[in-house]
Amino acid sequence: MEHLFTEIMRSFEGYNIGKMLKYMDNPEIISFAAGMPSAELFPVELVRTTQQRILDNNSDQVLQYSPVQGEKDLLLAVIDYLKRDHIHIAPENIMITTSGQHGLDLVGRLFLEPGDTIICDLPTFGGALAAFEMEAPRYFAKDIQEDGSDIAGMRDGINDLLQKGIFPKFIYVIPDFQNPSGITMSLTKRKELLALGEEYKIPIVEDSPYRELRYRGQDIPSLYTLDNNRGNVIGIFTFSKIFNPGLRVGFNIGPPEVIKKFSFIKGANILNTPKLNQDICTAFLREYDLDKHFRKARAFYSEKLDFFLETLNEFFSDLKEVHWTVSEGGLFLWMTVPKHINTMELFHAAIKEKVAFVPGELFFPREYEQFNKMRLNFSFPSKKQVVQGVQRLRNVINKYL
Amino acid sequence: MEHLFTEIMRSFEGYNIGKMLKYMDNPEIISFAAGMPSAELFPVELVRTTQQRILDNNSDQVLQYSPVQGEKDLLLAVIDYLKRDHIHIAPENIMITTSGQHGLDLVGRLFLEPGDTIICDLPTFGGALAAFEMEAPRYFAKDIQEDGSDIAGMRDGINDLLQKGIFPKFIYVIPDFQNPSGITMSLTKRKELLALGEEYKIPIVEDSPYRELRYRGQDIPSLYTLDNNRGNVIGIFTFSKIFNPGLRVGFNIGPPEVIKKFSFIKGANILNTPKLNQDICTAFLREYDLDKHFRKARAFYSEKLDFFLETLNEFFSDLKEVHWTVSEGGLFLWMTVPKHINTMELFHAAIKEKVAFVPGELFFPREYEQFNKMRLNFSFPSKKQVVQGVQRLRNVINKYL
Repeated sequence: MEHLFTEIMRSFEGYNIGKMLKYMDNPEIISFAAGMPSAELFPVELVRTTQQRILDNNSDQVLQYSPVQGEKDLLLAVIDYLKRDHIHIAPENIMITTSGQHGLDLVGRLFLEPGDTIICDLPTFGGALAAFEMEAPRYFAKDIQEDGSDIAGMRDGINDLLQKGIFPKFIYVIPDFQNPSGITMSLTKRKELLALGEEYKIPIVEDSPYRELRYRGQDIPSLYTLDNNRGNVIGIFTFSKIFNPGLRVGFNIGPPEVIKKFSFIKGANILNTPKLNQDICTAFLREYDLDKHFRKARAFYSEKLDFFLETLNEFFSDLKEVHWTVSEGGLFLWMTVPKHINTMELFHAAIKEKVAFVPGELFFPREYEQFNKMRLNFSFPSKKQVVQGVQRLRNVINKYL
Repeated sequence: MEHLFTEIMRSFEGYNIGKMLKYMDNPEIISFAAGMPSAELFPVELVRTTQQRILDNNSDQVLQYSPVQGEKDLLLAVIDYLKRDHIHIAPENIMITTSGQHGLDLVGRLFLEPGDTIICDLPTFGGALAAFEMEAPRYFAKDIQEDGSDIAGMRDGINDLLQKGIFPKFIYVIPDFQNPSGITMSLTKRKELLALGEEYKIPIVEDSPYRELRYRGQDIPSLYTLDNNRGNVIGIFTFSKIFNPGLRVGFNIGPPEVIKKFSFIKGANILNTPKLNQDICTAFLREYDLDKHFRKARAFYSEKLDFFLETLNEFFSDLKEVHWTVSEGGLFLWMTVPKHINTMELFHAAIKEKVAFVPGELFFPREYEQFNKMRLNFSFPSKKQVVQGVQRLRNVINKYL
């Protein structure tokens, strides 16, 4: 039936990280690839007791259809939760999603005609590229800087595009501990980015999976907060990294006209999010000691980050051509190897040495690919695995020097 | 931001049944509108014990990411389950979805360019129309007949389209107890439809939410079975009507090249289906006494159907201009009222009399709308509600005679 597929889908290859995973099914492989939160932090007891209670009290409703926008209790719980982060919204500003990937796909479906232009960083999140790719967009992208997006470069690019009659559809950023680079956007740049969006009337899509996971440095207000409900920011959130990824629940926030259309699309796409999964998230927000939970998560990951950085220093400090970002939070570091090394090739060599990472090229729009980078996850492996894995990685890189 | 939405999304209004529901939030309204299975049939105890067991034994994995295509255990359990229905497939022929709505959206995204033509019945499932609408298709549709699709009419239509250089992308049907008409396609017509699809190389999309819910008459093999793995049928299935709709789990089956692309799209759309929800479905298929469960469901709904038909006869037999289908299964009846009555108007009058149904126009592509039909759900209301509701419906219709 291939000849009947749409032109876009005939060449669409999906989310590439999924395809990398198939090379990693040998359990002896130490993986720095996945972006999985550590299962040690999952509030399993909360999930267990909540499910029990829901099924005892409300089994009829919990197994029925539920509203497209989301369960009212969860919408209200999220609204209260966001106040912790100085985000003040009403129910018409929020819709529950099947986690962040879904939130991004909804953005693509609402805004992107084939050939439309997105402004983003280099590198940027591969999952976002996969979602947007289904609408066949173009990109204008600039190398991310130590303090976040290259705002001046984006401004020049937008001016060039406008001169050619091209109006970019949105600017996509992950301001906190960017996936994959780990870089955080400074307050100054956040303000500049908002001003840029407002000046040119280009919406900003702020992807925020990791905001609660800051291990060092000072909190910086989100773009959504700084926009102060002027309605130029769409926020993409998920419970994946703050609670667990298995329930597949997240939420998009934004102007009412955008949320309304997201709900229309969601209704025709998946109808609704399972009520059971939503109710468990409501219990997490309402009944769990969030301060304690995040304190624990931060302490846990912070130690993992420190240890990973120490280990990198130990095994790579003599190699001046190899360097990496020092992230203040999130789950990832971004390593740059000498220009002549292609990390996709390196990946296949590394798999043979039983260590895995994500080749950097998966985090670039096709026309902007860079080949000497890789993403390293520090949150999942144990200390022992980190030492062994980094050593193996050094051994593989040695062969390419 | 509306001016930045895509052309399709600017006018997209979503799944209309959702919008009807907002008029029905008065609990005194007796609803024949929703397509909800009865909660009395939900295997709550199975859900409870399964969740408990999963969290006791496997909490780390169950709250993590899981494969895009679906949990291996569930894929294999569904493969075995389908053998009951003489469908024999391999793992490369199946992908887990977020229920039937998701299955349909994946079909639309894979096959439909704007302006592409779909062949379908009049009426047809409104949720399918909502999903396909996001790709802005055209339709060639023929009135459904007592024994199912008008195959000769479809053949003529296809010939006309081909002469104009238009190659239809697929034929969409619900052969068993069609939603909304309740009509079942005869064996003869199933064979004719398959021959038509094969002759013109047009895939057939078979939507099968209700196959297990036959209350009278003989089972007829599915199109997927009759196609005998020649690869011209895509099957859309859901656990919603056979287990419960709240977990949001279903599956698409079809040729490997189609399933592979569905997985690519799903990965970029929602990443994966929650493992917890899948594991509960696996337990339902593997551990529950399915024969007993379906026997119970059939007896339960059959009685509801009989009672609804009796009540309709009681209140409407004197009115020759009003008639309805007599379904052999599923959840719906389809009522035709005199030509001059617009059931959307009637709906708003009925709401005031505290009875609800779904206006028939929601089940027609826009260019084919018919206004004197309505869908009646018989599976959800109690006997008392049926009598009161049908009486109210008669009262409302009286005002329009």
